[in-house]
Amino acid sequence: MTAESRPQAPGTVRPGGRTARTRAAVRDAVLTGLAEHGYPGLTVEYVAEHSGVHKTTLYRRWGGVEDLVADALDLAGEDSWTPPDTGSLEGDLRALAREVVDTFGDPSAAAAPLAFVAAGFQSERAAQALRAFYTERFARCAAVVRRAVERGEAPADSDAAAVVRDVSAPLFFRAFVTREPLDIAVADQSATATLAAVRAGAYVTKEGSG
Amino acid sequence: MTAESRPQAPGTVRPGGRTARTRAAVRDAVLTGLAEHGYPGLTVEYVAEHSGVHKTTLYRRWGGVEDLVADALDLAGEDSWTPPDTGSLEGDLRALAREVVDTFGDPSAAAAPLAFVAAGFQSERAAQALRAFYTERFARCAAVVRRAVERGEAPADSDAAAVVRDVSAPLFFRAFVTREPLDIAVADQSATATLAAVRAGAYVTKEGSG
Repeated sequence: MTAESRPQAPGTVRPGGRTARTRAAVRDAVLTGLAEHGYPGLTVEYVAEHSGVHKTTLYRRWGGVEDLVADALDLAGEDSWTPPDTGSLEGDLRALAREVVDTFGDPSAAAAPLAFVAAGFQSERAAQALRAFYTERFARCAAVVRRAVERGEAPADSDAAAVVRDVSAPLFFRAFVTREPLDIAVADQSATATLAAVRAGAYVTKEGSG
Repeated sequence: MTAESRPQAPGTVRPGGRTARTRAAVRDAVLTGLAEHGYPGLTVEYVAEHSGVHKTTLYRRWGGVEDLVADALDLAGEDSWTPPDTGSLEGDLRALAREVVDTFGDPSAAAAPLAFVAAGFQSERAAQALRAFYTERFARCAAVVRRAVERGEAPADSDAAAVVRDVSAPLFFRAFVTREPLDIAVADQSATATLAAVRAGAYVTKEGSG
């Protein structure tokens, strides 16, 4: 889809210009609203009031609350984040895990992922946006495993998404399910376990090995 | 605390008798309400209507919505579940992972954990109850690792809770965060990775190794 075919699509017109600024303001209002009231309490009225964008504009360009949340998550996925490149797989996995722990340990940084993950329980659109967000994140992290294979630290055909998912999963599990504390030791434990599994070939894909 | 010191505490009087039945009826109503309306929409009035227990009784014995949800989770933790005992660590880890996948793949079985985990985002009492629930679950699973150590399949001083957390975490992460599909292959992948990490000594506690 091009900007010409759907000129009203949020963010497709003049990046850095008025539309991008409007979209960012709306995103900020969505995040504030999610943090304050949770998904069930978020309204288009709230977003209008806190973004300075008129309610009718929000309805016309985004649709409703579900679309506002999903677009805020889409926007979060458009950042320039790249995975760590420390020179070793162990270093990269530790850095990835520590980044997750640092995020959840900082209330202002944790607010957005917390709000999005919570919204996923109540909105199918938010759940779809979460899936797209993480699929894209895991794709960026493929570089970590590719470099490890090149350095001889990981078997060829290791499933990069599975490696990155598994180093992150125990941290998200603690933060959002078992509600256990997170610290650097926990991050390093996860990196150590994932590294051992990579070395043992536990992530070699069936297609590659068969 | 004994039944004598707090005779009104739910479930402490005559297990199997009226109080246990009342508590179970209240728990069922809480689960139905969470599944229908989510935590933000759950009210004491709803629980009263669907459990047949008078509202004033609910307020007197439980307190409010947060306490009702926390007690339903406490009750879920009082089941007779025991971890699998297949004769090998690999078999036990696969069985544990497949059990998680089976639960999330069955909407009626998934409703309760889904509702509880979602409530954890909005209620500190629910979050505390989740933590207590999983701490107790991991403690039950210590038998899996103890037997593996006895069979020579795992190093002594392996951290049982960490092993069980890590085999479950990628499945919960997919179900509740990245919203990716779950199937038996995903369960087996998680068991394979965790088994490799156990064998490599990734879960040996510092106290044991130092």
